[in-house]
Amino acid sequence: MRRVAIIGIGNTEFGELWDHSFREIGITAGLAAVEDANISAEMIDALYVGNMSAGRFIEQEHIGALIADYSGLARDHVPATRVEAAGASGGLALRQGFMAVASGLHDIVVVGGAEKMTDVSDLDSANIQSSAADQEWETVLGATFPALHALIAHRHMHVYGTTREQLADVAVKNHRHGALNPKAQFRREITRETVLGSPMVSSPLRVFDCAPSSDGAAAVVLCALENAKKYTDTPVEIIGSGQASDTLSLHDRKDICTMEATRVAAKRAFDMAKVAQKDVQVAEVHDSFTISEILAIEDLGFFKKGEGGKATEAGLTGLSGQIAVNTSGGLKARGDPIGATGLAQAVEIVAQLRGKADKRQVKDAQVGLTHNVGGTGATVVVHVLRRV
Amino acid sequence: MRRVAIIGIGNTEFGELWDHSFREIGITAGLAAVEDANISAEMIDALYVGNMSAGRFIEQEHIGALIADYSGLARDHVPATRVEAAGASGGLALRQGFMAVASGLHDIVVVGGAEKMTDVSDLDSANIQSSAADQEWETVLGATFPALHALIAHRHMHVYGTTREQLADVAVKNHRHGALNPKAQFRREITRETVLGSPMVSSPLRVFDCAPSSDGAAAVVLCALENAKKYTDTPVEIIGSGQASDTLSLHDRKDICTMEATRVAAKRAFDMAKVAQKDVQVAEVHDSFTISEILAIEDLGFFKKGEGGKATEAGLTGLSGQIAVNTSGGLKARGDPIGATGLAQAVEIVAQLRGKADKRQVKDAQVGLTHNVGGTGATVVVHVLRRV
Repeated sequence: MRRVAIIGIGNTEFGELWDHSFREIGITAGLAAVEDANISAEMIDALYVGNMSAGRFIEQEHIGALIADYSGLARDHVPATRVEAAGASGGLALRQGFMAVASGLHDIVVVGGAEKMTDVSDLDSANIQSSAADQEWETVLGATFPALHALIAHRHMHVYGTTREQLADVAVKNHRHGALNPKAQFRREITRETVLGSPMVSSPLRVFDCAPSSDGAAAVVLCALENAKKYTDTPVEIIGSGQASDTLSLHDRKDICTMEATRVAAKRAFDMAKVAQKDVQVAEVHDSFTISEILAIEDLGFFKKGEGGKATEAGLTGLSGQIAVNTSGGLKARGDPIGATGLAQAVEIVAQLRGKADKRQVKDAQVGLTHNVGGTGATVVVHVLRRV
Repeated sequence: MRRVAIIGIGNTEFGELWDHSFREIGITAGLAAVEDANISAEMIDALYVGNMSAGRFIEQEHIGALIADYSGLARDHVPATRVEAAGASGGLALRQGFMAVASGLHDIVVVGGAEKMTDVSDLDSANIQSSAADQEWETVLGATFPALHALIAHRHMHVYGTTREQLADVAVKNHRHGALNPKAQFRREITRETVLGSPMVSSPLRVFDCAPSSDGAAAVVLCALENAKKYTDTPVEIIGSGQASDTLSLHDRKDICTMEATRVAAKRAFDMAKVAQKDVQVAEVHDSFTISEILAIEDLGFFKKGEGGKATEAGLTGLSGQIAVNTSGGLKARGDPIGATGLAQAVEIVAQLRGKADKRQVKDAQVGLTHNVGGTGATVVVHVLRRV
C-alpha cells in the first residue's frame, strides 16, 4: 500500500444556508480544497462524496455524479462515488479515497461531504435522521435519535455517576471553541445555566445537549505521500484508518455505555498508525449529543470508562487540556450537516497540524484524530493524522 | 496492486418478493455467496453494499450496518460500507470491494447489492427512480426516466434508422434468455407483437421496452487471486475495472445517441485488462430500456455506432451470436432491483465463465464483461472478468 497525504482542505460556513443549494455548497467546499492544494481540476483522478440522505432531504440520489457534473469534472469523465453510513458517511468517504490512493488506482482524489438539512420541516428532518437507527425495531416504535441517546445518558449517569452538569460542560466547552471558529454554526459562548435551562428534548437531554440540523460541506484533497511535497509545504499524512460495525439497534448491545465499534475502530487505526493515545494532541470526536462526546473520549482510550464526565468538568478536554477535543466546536457548535461532518473533522485536524487554526490552535500539535459515528454507533470510522 | 478474484456468487430470485423484507433478501444473497466460496463468516474482512434508495423505498438509511448486523458480521465488527450511484450502485460497490482487496487493506470482502422497490406505490417508485436524473433540471419539469430514454430512442431512430421492430427484438431476445434463468423475474418468451402491442409508456417506448420494478439481491465474494485456489477450483479474475462520469442531465450532452461515459469506462477497463472487445464472449449490459442495450453494445465497441439495432435483429447478440448479450435475461427479463443489478451482472458472468450457466451457457466463454449504468449515463462502471 502507498502512503497517503492530505494536501488540501476546504469547507463552507455551516448553518442554515437557505440561499445556497446542495450542489452549490458541495462545489464551494471542493473548489476551496482544490485551490488550497495548488492543483488544477484536470489533475483530479476521482471524486468521493459522503452524504446521508439527499434522497429524502432534497429528493436527489446520484449525488456523486451531480457534484462531478456541476464542478466540471464530468467533462473529463472523472469517476464519482457516493458513500453512505448515516453520520459516518463523511469519514467513510475519506476511507474510500484513502484506499483509492493507497491501492495505486488513483493518484489525486478529492473527497467531499455535504448535506442540506434545513429545506425540510423539523419533523421530516427528525424522521430522516432517525433512519440511521433501525427502522423496524426502533424508529417505528417512536424511538427517535435523541430518545436513543437519552437512554445512553441515563444509564451512564446511573452506572458511573456522571452528572447532569458534566453533560452541560461538554456543550459549554464546544460552544467556547465554536466561538473561535469563523465557520461554525454557533459562535457564541454559553454557560452551564444556558444548557440546564433549555427546553427538554428527551430526558435528560435538553436542546443544548443536541447538535443542530445544519447545511454545509467540507472537502479534502488526497495524494500519494511521495508526491505531496510537490503541492504543499505542510502535507498531513493519514497514518491510520480504522472502521468497525456494531448492531444497528441499541437493545442488541451488551452495554449501551460503551460504543464497542469506537473501541475496535480506534484499535485498528492506532495499530495501523503505530502510535498510541498519549501521542495524540487534538481530536475531533462525534458529539451528536453531549453524552456522545463523553462516550467517545472514554472508548477512544483517552480517559478510563466512566471518567469522561469528570475529565470534561476538570477541563482536561479544553484547548490547553490533556487532549484538546472538538476544537472546531464539534457537531454541537460547528454544526452537523451529516454527510459533511466526517470531512469537517479532517479539515479541522489538518488545520491544527499545519499550525493554522488561529485562535483555537493547539500548541505543538503533531498527531490528531477524527472519530465519526453513524447511528448510535453501528458504524464508526477513526482516522489518525500526522504532520509530515 | 494485488490481483483480485471472485470466488463466490449468490443471488435471490428477482421479482415482487412481498413475503421477504429488505434485510432478509440482502442476507440470503450474501450467505449464498459465502457458502459458494467455501469460506466461513469469521474470515470476512469487509462488506460493501450497493443500494440506490432504501431511504425512500423502505425509509431506512445506514444499509451497510443493517446488513452487517443481520448477517451476524457486526459481532466481529466487520466494516460495512454502502455505495450509491443510482442504477450503477452495485457495480460501484464491486469496484470499491475490488480496491479494498487490491490495496492489501482487506483479504476477503463480500460485495452485495439489494433493493426492495415494490413496497411503495407505482407512482412513488417512478418518482424515486427519477431521482437518478437531475432533480432540478429534469425531474421537476416532468421528465421521467422513461421519457428521457424515449428522447434517446427517437433520436437514434432518426439519425441511424433504427426501427421500432429492432427495439422490440432486444426485449424478445432478453425474454428468451430470461426463460432459461430460474431466478429471472420474467421467465416467459415473448414475440415482437407482444412488445409492439403493449401499452405506450413514453413514445416510442412501450411497457415491454422497459425493465420492471423488482425486489432482489445479489452478492459476490472477493479475495486476492494468489489465495483464490484455496477456496475454489474455478476462480474468476477481475482483470479490468473502469468507471466514468458524464453530465447528470441529458440536455448537457453533445450527442444523446452516445453514452460517452460507457465509452470511457470501457476504454479504462479494457486498457487495464489488456484485452479487446473481440476477446469477450459474453456481456451483461444495462438494458433499463430496449434502446439502452442498443446504445450499450455500440458504445462498448462490440458494434459500430448506429448498427446496434441491425445487429440485434440479425441475432448477433443471442446465445450463439457474435457476442452473447444479457444471457441472464438482462434488466428487462431477469429484473432490475436497482442496487442489486450490478452484482447480478457479475453473478451471471462468473456462472458463464465457470461453465455453469446451464441452458443459457455460452460455449467456451473465457472472458466476460459487465456494464452498469446510473441515471441516463452520468455514471458507468465496466468490469472485465476472465476465467483463471
